[in-house]
Amino acid sequence: MAQQKKLVEAITSRDEDFAKWYTDIVKKAELADYSGIKGCMVIRPHGYAIWENIQKDLDRRFKETGHENVYMPMFIPEGMLQKEKDHVEGFAPECAWVTVGGSEKLNERLCVRPTSETLFCEHYSKIVNSYRDLPKLYNQWCSVVRWEKTTRPFLRTSEFLWQEGHTIHETEKEAREETLRMLQVYIDFYKETLAIPAVTGRKTEKEKFAGAIETYTIEPMMHNGVALQGGTSHFFGDGFARSFNITFTGRDNTLQYPFQTSWGVSTRMIGALIMVHSDDDGLVLPPRVAPIQVAVIPIAQKKEGVLEKASELKNRLIAAGFRVKLDDSDKAPGWKFSQYEMLGVPVRVEIGPKDIENGQCVLVRRDTREKMFISLDKLEDTISELLADIHESMYKAAQKNLEEKTFTARTHEEFLDIAQNKPGFIKAMWCGDTACEDQLKDETGGVKSRCIPFVEEQLSDKCVCCGKPAKHMVFWGRQY
Amino acid sequence: MAQQKKLVEAITSRDEDFAKWYTDIVKKAELADYSGIKGCMVIRPHGYAIWENIQKDLDRRFKETGHENVYMPMFIPEGMLQKEKDHVEGFAPECAWVTVGGSEKLNERLCVRPTSETLFCEHYSKIVNSYRDLPKLYNQWCSVVRWEKTTRPFLRTSEFLWQEGHTIHETEKEAREETLRMLQVYIDFYKETLAIPAVTGRKTEKEKFAGAIETYTIEPMMHNGVALQGGTSHFFGDGFARSFNITFTGRDNTLQYPFQTSWGVSTRMIGALIMVHSDDDGLVLPPRVAPIQVAVIPIAQKKEGVLEKASELKNRLIAAGFRVKLDDSDKAPGWKFSQYEMLGVPVRVEIGPKDIENGQCVLVRRDTREKMFISLDKLEDTISELLADIHESMYKAAQKNLEEKTFTARTHEEFLDIAQNKPGFIKAMWCGDTACEDQLKDETGGVKSRCIPFVEEQLSDKCVCCGKPAKHMVFWGRQY
Repeated sequence: MAQQKKLVEAITSRDEDFAKWYTDIVKKAELADYSGIKGCMVIRPHGYAIWENIQKDLDRRFKETGHENVYMPMFIPEGMLQKEKDHVEGFAPECAWVTVGGSEKLNERLCVRPTSETLFCEHYSKIVNSYRDLPKLYNQWCSVVRWEKTTRPFLRTSEFLWQEGHTIHETEKEAREETLRMLQVYIDFYKETLAIPAVTGRKTEKEKFAGAIETYTIEPMMHNGVALQGGTSHFFGDGFARSFNITFTGRDNTLQYPFQTSWGVSTRMIGALIMVHSDDDGLVLPPRVAPIQVAVIPIAQKKEGVLEKASELKNRLIAAGFRVKLDDSDKAPGWKFSQYEMLGVPVRVEIGPKDIENGQCVLVRRDTREKMFISLDKLEDTISELLADIHESMYKAAQKNLEEKTFTARTHEEFLDIAQNKPGFIKAMWCGDTACEDQLKDETGGVKSRCIPFVEEQLSDKCVCCGKPAKHMVFWGRQY
Repeated sequence: MAQQKKLVEAITSRDEDFAKWYTDIVKKAELADYSGIKGCMVIRPHGYAIWENIQKDLDRRFKETGHENVYMPMFIPEGMLQKEKDHVEGFAPECAWVTVGGSEKLNERLCVRPTSETLFCEHYSKIVNSYRDLPKLYNQWCSVVRWEKTTRPFLRTSEFLWQEGHTIHETEKEAREETLRMLQVYIDFYKETLAIPAVTGRKTEKEKFAGAIETYTIEPMMHNGVALQGGTSHFFGDGFARSFNITFTGRDNTLQYPFQTSWGVSTRMIGALIMVHSDDDGLVLPPRVAPIQVAVIPIAQKKEGVLEKASELKNRLIAAGFRVKLDDSDKAPGWKFSQYEMLGVPVRVEIGPKDIENGQCVLVRRDTREKMFISLDKLEDTISELLADIHESMYKAAQKNLEEKTFTARTHEEFLDIAQNKPGFIKAMWCGDTACEDQLKDETGGVKSRCIPFVEEQLSDKCVCCGKPAKHMVFWGRQY
């Protein structure tokens, strides 16, 4: 137990210093490491395995909704980026520029893609000719670069991994439906796979994506009440098509502009997994993305028959389809307990000589630490139920946190008071003016509109900032 | 049939103009498209789906041999690249350099990774301390950039997708074993999944990787007798470890340098699939990487019951685990036949009113065009056998081509004669001097050493170039 204590002490407490606790977990759970390159991280095996599970699950959802994967170049010539005015204004300030290729200075600078709307448009302008060519429902998995001033592993890095869907449609209606369909895919994925609840809705003019007509967002709340923009889905209208001269011959034989969308989520979700679920003993992973779902720890493993039995349990669990690791190293059980807690493994199986005698084993769940003795012949069924239950409890705990830290402000004074004293989301009415968003942000030192939800409550009839007639109820909050 | 003919005519004949035939297939089979960025291609859905199947299969092989995936930054600071002398000399001339980030000029230029040895070394220097930390068996899937002057889709592009394994070991013996183990994984993958035979062996000093002590290679032969360097596996000794000051405390408590390897294959393999297997009607894909394995084409689909039956067959085949597409579009069957031939789909199922009456369907295999009538109740079994047989036949046909186009030269004159008149590999003895390799390359306009095979034949005792005592039998050939 001395060793276990030592490991645990190595992490800063979440309540004491949330930021330090976060980076401690990134490091101690071996998710990522700093690299020698400004703002870029090394994603280590445990972190990358989580990303692989995320990819597999999302990719299946994308394919089930009819999308195909492609790969676009990682460079965008400066002239191509400039074709859409709002878009280039949004991204040019954070581009990394290649100016030399081989030993020659390039005639035109190449931007390392910060996002690939322009590349997809260039391609669509070549392959879309008739309404028969539509829709194209493309997605790509890649890394993108945005030159960030202050960075933090997973949450904000100069390079990050993501997927970006880019679709093109015959009609505005279809494109609008696609935008909302993919938002719903994200909402389902957050709930069903990451066990993370969120508020969702539409971004205000001020907060929407550079070049978009509408941006929809999913905004989970971290344990400390701060929001994370967890994924976005954009409707572009025909703006990009006009800028890139993408046209098609319609059913009525006239030349028309198609309508486009894009949508993306990134390795930032690993940051959300940490900040929503984890605790002072390390990572807590929802079972569906956990690289190891069950850790089998033999007790008194030098005693006859223990390792054999542990190995038998491991094989049974693998055969039942679980991701399992048996740790038969010569380290003490106490060390192993805290190690697999640190890594966020959802269930630990302990098996020792006494357990074998009694035809049982010990199960310990990571999220609640609950310990139970179960009969060995019920192992697979119990673990299957337990993993499902862990997912549900984790979701409910996160939901409870979100609800408890969501406040209502009906007056300007209330808004400022909550912003100062109660970390979390604030529901408040808004007149629709960007000036009020700017003012609230300044007054609170960073509280911004998160989204206008699909179902708005009528809290009052006045803007919480200027007192003019309210147009919308908005979720407000600080963000990572 | 008019439509079918038209489609077929659109491709240049392989024997007439191999290079044009190749690019025709890339385009008509919708594998890739040119982009507006010099030397970079767009990988389209059909091409990317092949890459996904390649990735899935290889990734499984890597994990079965104990490897874990990670992700390193895409940028390498100039100073980091320069740490290993031979390595930087090999790669600096083809680097793309980022010199501006955001709106500021960088103090140190960043190279977009052409390969990631230096990044892995930097990371290993931080995480390897004791023999207990070894080995680390890491792999990464990513894109890399090499500024090429002349490019061709899949074969040579400024940016390409690949995997790069990077491992670090306690002993030289282990690292040497790993180098050969991964070469064998590539050999097995080429044979079992791509249906491509190859010669394999060690590269000469002149041809080995920048910074390696040994480079092993797999060299398949294209249909026209030209070689493609299909994959390489490198043993680095402790050279990189010394340059990057990676040390560990050994079992005897002394400070030691570890030994390293790296190995990689790329989207170039898609080029090999085209040039080894395909024909004048388009792509021919080995079943294990084919995005669509079976195309179901209804005949006279407006007749009652045809589409229902076709759909039933599709569902049966999907349930049996095949990748299936039913084409019920209003295009003519003849057009569909040539379209799925162009895409390389291994098996076509035709089902029409007469077939239904007779309880049968028509199967046509893509590789040999053989047509057979089979009873509907044997559908799944027959297709399963057929796909296995197609794989075998494709491998054998490629093997026959390789054997028929491998020649033996015992004298300098014979060598030059074969090099000029018979496209293919040349087996010939060599003294071990780089000067002779240079001379043979000059005299033949490009024939280079491919590899020294693991089992050498003793063709004569003299070097085919200078006549001095021979040290090795070498495979020679032109390359893409």
